[in-house]
Amino acid sequence: MNILVTNDDGIFAPGIYSLACALSKIGKVYVVAPNRQRSATGHAITMHEPIRAEKVKFFDKDFDAWAVSGTPADCVKIGIQGLIKEKIDMVFSGINKGPNLGTDVLYSGTVSAAIEGAILGYPSVAISLASFRNLYYDGAAEFSIQIAKKLIENELPLDTLLNVNVPNCRKEEIQGVHISTLGARKYNNTFIERKDPWGETYFWLGGELVDEKKEEGTDTYSIENNYIAITPIHFDLTRFDLIEKVKGWDIQV
Amino acid sequence: MNILVTNDDGIFAPGIYSLACALSKIGKVYVVAPNRQRSATGHAITMHEPIRAEKVKFFDKDFDAWAVSGTPADCVKIGIQGLIKEKIDMVFSGINKGPNLGTDVLYSGTVSAAIEGAILGYPSVAISLASFRNLYYDGAAEFSIQIAKKLIENELPLDTLLNVNVPNCRKEEIQGVHISTLGARKYNNTFIERKDPWGETYFWLGGELVDEKKEEGTDTYSIENNYIAITPIHFDLTRFDLIEKVKGWDIQV
Repeated sequence: MNILVTNDDGIFAPGIYSLACALSKIGKVYVVAPNRQRSATGHAITMHEPIRAEKVKFFDKDFDAWAVSGTPADCVKIGIQGLIKEKIDMVFSGINKGPNLGTDVLYSGTVSAAIEGAILGYPSVAISLASFRNLYYDGAAEFSIQIAKKLIENELPLDTLLNVNVPNCRKEEIQGVHISTLGARKYNNTFIERKDPWGETYFWLGGELVDEKKEEGTDTYSIENNYIAITPIHFDLTRFDLIEKVKGWDIQV
Repeated sequence: MNILVTNDDGIFAPGIYSLACALSKIGKVYVVAPNRQRSATGHAITMHEPIRAEKVKFFDKDFDAWAVSGTPADCVKIGIQGLIKEKIDMVFSGINKGPNLGTDVLYSGTVSAAIEGAILGYPSVAISLASFRNLYYDGAAEFSIQIAKKLIENELPLDTLLNVNVPNCRKEEIQGVHISTLGARKYNNTFIERKDPWGETYFWLGGELVDEKKEEGTDTYSIENNYIAITPIHFDLTRFDLIEKVKGWDIQV
């Protein structure tokens, strides 16, 4: 089995190392990842400038690995359609530093890379560790092996991928596995206004998560209660249940 | 009524000028748009560097207008949460140069800006002109007035926005309005490999649309047949119908 591994924290982030090492126990790993931090790039792709892809040494491993100047979605495209000569069987993206829950998935480069894998027709998984401090990647990495095995045994529709969030704790502290929906996740954004050394104004996007009730069944609830949250997601944004309603608006040219 | 207008082709693109002028007939227009071409940025946001927002003269108009160094989604965030002091009633993004049909919406900065508007709780519309050549924006711009009026008369759920694609032809050639689903839209990507003047390899994302059957009821079908396509879309990617199935996989920690 050939597995493409990517992420959005960059090719030299510890999360992708843990993930690639774990998956190398069950298949041949190819690493194609951004050459720098590319968090919050969403599903951006690079159309208007060239992309560089440099073959690199991946830590202490002999995996084929490329550091790419583009986005996570670019990495999956160029990995499968340009760099790797073998047939890929599966795409894994992560392990992300920090959760990708609820509406986070729209902004997440990690999830977008897995969505790109699904668009191209490959079983795809995004995996994130739900903390920003004292990260313990190895538990999530071990769990990725199980996910890969389940994806071989059980087929998902081609337009569907798995978004996995793992609590940042020891295996014995994890309460179990939930198959969850995406929860609500709102940020109270503030733009902090500052002056640069030349007196010109600039802004930083700041703000914090609004603490709200986490409904049972959602990924936010699962993570809060130390469960692994697995959410099947797809990329058809059509709001089917409103088609008839909007037809009733009788919009004319 | 206060209307925020943005796009992904940049603040000095002709499409946003047509849109802003049309909407100024029914409300006060605020323009907050990228200071350069930002197509295919998806739902990227700028978290890891500062954002500049420069007040600019918008063509021959007196609209309040800012050219922003960030992405289209940034423009909506910083417009509503930082720059504009009045209460915004509606967000319009466009008029995009080129269609945003089917899976295009995932990559589109234009659509992502409207999604951001919906995330923040505002009635939001993305509008695109379905051609890259000999663009005739004024018809689509006039049509945006009708969409805005319908959105006032008829409420959409807060998590839903409208993705509108307009055929690039004279009003009398348009066959009507379809409320459509997102169609399939596949690209046969190829990465063109070249050498730079110093002998180093670089790649360009190339390739073309795969011509496939356009199913009746989809936006791709509507546009092909010279209908305006309006698709209600949302941003909950959960594949609800597969939750129970994946529960049956019995994944253990």
